[in-house]
Amino acid sequence: MTGSMTERSHDLDALFFPRSVAVIGASTKELSIGNRIIRNLQDFGYTGPIHAINPKGEEVRGLRPHISILDVPGDVELAHVVIPAGYVPAAMEECGRKGVKVVIVNSAGFREVGSEGEELERQVLAIAREHGIRVFGPNCQGIINSDPGVRAYCNFTFTRPLEGSISIVAQSGGVAEMINQRFVELGAGVRMYASNGNASDISIPEVIRYWGDDEATKVIVVHVESLSDPTAFLEASVEVAARKPVLGMKAGRTPEGAQAVSSHTGGLARQEVVTELLFDRAGMVTFRDVEEMCQAAVAFSSQPVPTGNRVGLITNTGGPAIIATDELVEAGLVIPPLSENTRLVLREQLHAAASIANPIDVLATAGAEHFRSAVEALMDEEDIDSVYINFVTPFFVDVESIARELVEANRAGRKPIVCNLMTDRKEWAGTVKILREGGIPTYSFPEMAAKSLAAMTRLHLLRSRESGEPVTFEDVDSDRAREILDDAWESDSAWLSSDQVYGILEAYGLPVASWKTVCGAPEAVAAAEEIGFPVVVKADSPDIVHKSDAGGVAVDLKDAEAVRAAVERMEAALEPVIPDYLVQAYLPGGMELIAGAKAEAGPGHLIMFGMGGIHVEVLKDVAFALTPVTPPGAERMIDSLRSRPVLEGVRGRNGVDREALLDIIQRLSQLVSEQPCIKEIDLNPILAFEDRVIVVDARIGL
Amino acid sequence: MTGSMTERSHDLDALFFPRSVAVIGASTKELSIGNRIIRNLQDFGYTGPIHAINPKGEEVRGLRPHISILDVPGDVELAHVVIPAGYVPAAMEECGRKGVKVVIVNSAGFREVGSEGEELERQVLAIAREHGIRVFGPNCQGIINSDPGVRAYCNFTFTRPLEGSISIVAQSGGVAEMINQRFVELGAGVRMYASNGNASDISIPEVIRYWGDDEATKVIVVHVESLSDPTAFLEASVEVAARKPVLGMKAGRTPEGAQAVSSHTGGLARQEVVTELLFDRAGMVTFRDVEEMCQAAVAFSSQPVPTGNRVGLITNTGGPAIIATDELVEAGLVIPPLSENTRLVLREQLHAAASIANPIDVLATAGAEHFRSAVEALMDEEDIDSVYINFVTPFFVDVESIARELVEANRAGRKPIVCNLMTDRKEWAGTVKILREGGIPTYSFPEMAAKSLAAMTRLHLLRSRESGEPVTFEDVDSDRAREILDDAWESDSAWLSSDQVYGILEAYGLPVASWKTVCGAPEAVAAAEEIGFPVVVKADSPDIVHKSDAGGVAVDLKDAEAVRAAVERMEAALEPVIPDYLVQAYLPGGMELIAGAKAEAGPGHLIMFGMGGIHVEVLKDVAFALTPVTPPGAERMIDSLRSRPVLEGVRGRNGVDREALLDIIQRLSQLVSEQPCIKEIDLNPILAFEDRVIVVDARIGL
Repeated sequence: MTGSMTERSHDLDALFFPRSVAVIGASTKELSIGNRIIRNLQDFGYTGPIHAINPKGEEVRGLRPHISILDVPGDVELAHVVIPAGYVPAAMEECGRKGVKVVIVNSAGFREVGSEGEELERQVLAIAREHGIRVFGPNCQGIINSDPGVRAYCNFTFTRPLEGSISIVAQSGGVAEMINQRFVELGAGVRMYASNGNASDISIPEVIRYWGDDEATKVIVVHVESLSDPTAFLEASVEVAARKPVLGMKAGRTPEGAQAVSSHTGGLARQEVVTELLFDRAGMVTFRDVEEMCQAAVAFSSQPVPTGNRVGLITNTGGPAIIATDELVEAGLVIPPLSENTRLVLREQLHAAASIANPIDVLATAGAEHFRSAVEALMDEEDIDSVYINFVTPFFVDVESIARELVEANRAGRKPIVCNLMTDRKEWAGTVKILREGGIPTYSFPEMAAKSLAAMTRLHLLRSRESGEPVTFEDVDSDRAREILDDAWESDSAWLSSDQVYGILEAYGLPVASWKTVCGAPEAVAAAEEIGFPVVVKADSPDIVHKSDAGGVAVDLKDAEAVRAAVERMEAALEPVIPDYLVQAYLPGGMELIAGAKAEAGPGHLIMFGMGGIHVEVLKDVAFALTPVTPPGAERMIDSLRSRPVLEGVRGRNGVDREALLDIIQRLSQLVSEQPCIKEIDLNPILAFEDRVIVVDARIGL
Repeated sequence: MTGSMTERSHDLDALFFPRSVAVIGASTKELSIGNRIIRNLQDFGYTGPIHAINPKGEEVRGLRPHISILDVPGDVELAHVVIPAGYVPAAMEECGRKGVKVVIVNSAGFREVGSEGEELERQVLAIAREHGIRVFGPNCQGIINSDPGVRAYCNFTFTRPLEGSISIVAQSGGVAEMINQRFVELGAGVRMYASNGNASDISIPEVIRYWGDDEATKVIVVHVESLSDPTAFLEASVEVAARKPVLGMKAGRTPEGAQAVSSHTGGLARQEVVTELLFDRAGMVTFRDVEEMCQAAVAFSSQPVPTGNRVGLITNTGGPAIIATDELVEAGLVIPPLSENTRLVLREQLHAAASIANPIDVLATAGAEHFRSAVEALMDEEDIDSVYINFVTPFFVDVESIARELVEANRAGRKPIVCNLMTDRKEWAGTVKILREGGIPTYSFPEMAAKSLAAMTRLHLLRSRESGEPVTFEDVDSDRAREILDDAWESDSAWLSSDQVYGILEAYGLPVASWKTVCGAPEAVAAAEEIGFPVVVKADSPDIVHKSDAGGVAVDLKDAEAVRAAVERMEAALEPVIPDYLVQAYLPGGMELIAGAKAEAGPGHLIMFGMGGIHVEVLKDVAFALTPVTPPGAERMIDSLRSRPVLEGVRGRNGVDREALLDIIQRLSQLVSEQPCIKEIDLNPILAFEDRVIVVDARIGL
């Protein structure tokens, strides 16, 4: 498919490998988009014919003009539309009659300007569909393809990428162009580039899939602002990320005030969490800094993914190696000691004053043979998965021969190498060139080299983790739960009653404390006697969300009198609300945990699990996952908590029943997956003991 | 003083502004340090005479050679020594006879190679002292001074800095050179440069002080690996940082395994914490990334420090503004809404489709007049302290006139400006130049521009925070404490007995639960009856460090029988150790906190305060400060805890007695300041209640 102008099997071939391009709105004005696109195509060396459509019949950049696209002799595969929004429907109609395959609508004035523009966008799309035209945009930059067979710069930006293997897709043209510029500055080559603006038809997932099949694309860089179809995004990314590194970043992670906690699960679960979980599930390497993503992409484009997290360091100057060590260790990488055998070998081959440890300090006076010995030693060392090199270029050694030696060692591709190259890049341009052409990614600072290696190691960890299959618990009575939910749905109440909530939990095998719902003090006393003392009494009304704040909870009631007094106190406190009361066995001494789920557009539900009480609100020690949660997924949720050692038992205190926690997380996942009408569910608190775990309060919203 | 070759009032004038330089060990070999230094001086345009000292009498780089420095006609102010270490004492002796003022010993082979080298270093220094010579090094690079009056490149590195206002000092030559290179790449000018290696005489604090008085130095960048004299460092930095920005970074923040917790305070307090606290107390802006430090230095060198943390943003492209917002907000900066008046003004002056909010999106089609309106509006806006500009350079607008407009607005220097300039820096070189020469710091990514602005804002916060004076509590009985400590010192025990510990706490007014130390069960019962039930009984022996792990603690003992049984159980469990027992009032229900102090070389003691129990070990929610802790310092310790809301009361639970906590922190600070023989003290746990705070266990080590 891609990479060729002749075999055409994919819709997007006409976008990225157009045989001919027309610009509707070609302009004689130098500083117009309708002129710039033609200039870009010409300057970049587009291999096909370019047609200028200019209603005034003016010649544009030496091209014979056509009044209409219909006047163009021969086929037009790709058309740019660079005219006021109101004229776009007519232009699209003409493109249809001409048999154009893809139209890039650069013009703005559509969905982004409000409802009128939205209507216009729908209209344009409808015309395109009628004619089988695929639309890129509107309100977009376009694409670039540096493939020598096409050299398509179908875009009005101004930075010419070098030919290479990194492909970039971003909603925001500004961000895409910034990334493109950075690759030029870094001397890194770009394969294809796409920024689709309003994305009315051709979507980012579709582009990712296309590049998945493009052999010349080695790395894909993705920047999104919002995911309009998370499921499609996930499906495409999972498939492609299994084959080549997909690097991703999402903008807009701090909608200020999103921290305001309206309810536990709701407040902690933000859109950003969902996107990061999606990226994670897709096996994408996630970033929070564009520069770091660009620099890592350079490493991914030429280096293999490490097969572990153990780094060997080589340096010819002390200080920067310490900085690299700090950064690598903080990123979770391991710097193991060298084996005795390796140390013996190096002791013989390096300078006498060299430091034979990890980092290996070969000294500033080290020549090519010393670097070679050190690199070979790390390549051979079993406990090392990747190699970090700090290379300052002293004037008194032959640094170009060192660079050639490193390139030679890299050629075998046994383990990934990154190099912090500390030099004057103008004076030592020859050395820079040898390393660059030899495929060794170079950095100006130890931190960035370390971060790039850490990113490559993250991909290894993502790929090697166990994903598992979700468990379906056979003892679940989903029909009973559905009945309760149907009833609740009909009653038109946003929150389920305690009866309903506990009924659903029981139907899904979620362990709850013995309970009974009653009206008034006498019934409460009777229920308490039936359940057995001590008990908890909680006011139960859809009008009360946070019961304990409202004075609606009394715990450790040891006898009938205490129950009666508690109910009477609540009656007074909650007036004019007249609640039911939930009487429940009181279980002292457990560790407070919390779990919950919240429906998300697209990817199902977001599951939350973590420490309860002050931890959830103040320390926010909670983990998230998307449904369905598999057994290893549940394990990872528990393991990612900062408080994990507390769950496992610290300082003589016993840990809690981990199996039961895993069970609860997975049953909760099954519940919301099978009952998608549940908008929100909180199990709070869950009390965990050494030998069992019990849900003692919960609420469910539709 | 500095900045002139004629007035000389400071020892370091001869180092940074040498009137003449001799190189002892000048070599004809191109690739030798003794040749390179001469070449660097010549190429950089050194304004004074250069003397080559070559024992073979060979001409070096066109210079007439001298066999000995004694043969040089006229004075020599600065001499490089580039000969094997063993010959350095004799060379130093000759320098003394010649009247040389400063000697840079580039040669290695001293303290860094072990005890023999250490002895040699002492010897060299003694000779220098005898002759009143100041020594720079040994085992060092040297200095650079770009002042046009001297152009001194007394260094064997290879990157020629541009003339400018940033001065760099670093122990590690590799790191210093890396920073220097980066400034060249960024087009930022360097004033002076110093890397002093073993630092046997001229120290980093001395250099910092010197640059404090150098008017042309606007910003000082410091990188340290270890502080040999923290007090001197603190004194110099405090003084200089009050006048000009001092940016600092410390390498070696993750000595792996330093996490192993040997005892609470000891385990959590690492050298790095101390350095960061020193930097903080000095009013230095601290970094954890060299690149970020370099990029921030560029902003500091041309921009005023903001007077608050409120940022106004201007952008002509959407996506990067979102990224900038994320980064600024995460760094603690505030992006306030614009005033109505400003919005009205901008609505009139900007394009109709422009977004009049914060960020202000002037649109890609905005020209100079639109940018000018937006910048002026933010300069006038009362609620804005600094201006962030996202500037992409579309081909269809006159971007150079925009750049000139920004420079004009910047000239007034009313509020700091940073600019994320998204462009092809070759094609738009003119625009880059206008901004650079106009003193507007430019960045390639929104994150870095935001980080630099955040660093400038950190300096504002450091300078505007209240430091306060330490309180001396008058009710303290320091004599009694000293007596106890003298006794303990004589008894030669590393840890004090409970008697001694509680005696000292009481002498310093630290609130402790009623207690009594006893032997055996009958005495324990009697003590409990005297104190009143319920009680705690703890085994008390220097052989038991973590009592509860060893089964040496029993709580909530309600009667005599319970006390007797507990003591008997401990006797059995702890055999063969025969401990004393501490009987203490039992106080249920308080919040567990911890405080402690640990002696540090140089700056006094490190004070620690934080959440106790699982928090200290698992969540590490603790704050550190150096003695003496002032009232605002104590407030900041409490406020910096993640769990602060818990101390203040959450979800219907009351907070704890904050005044009493502040009191404990400050009394602890006074205790270790007045009794510096205390090596380590732990108050753990402290139980905090709504109306009081009580220390219930403690230990003191000498």
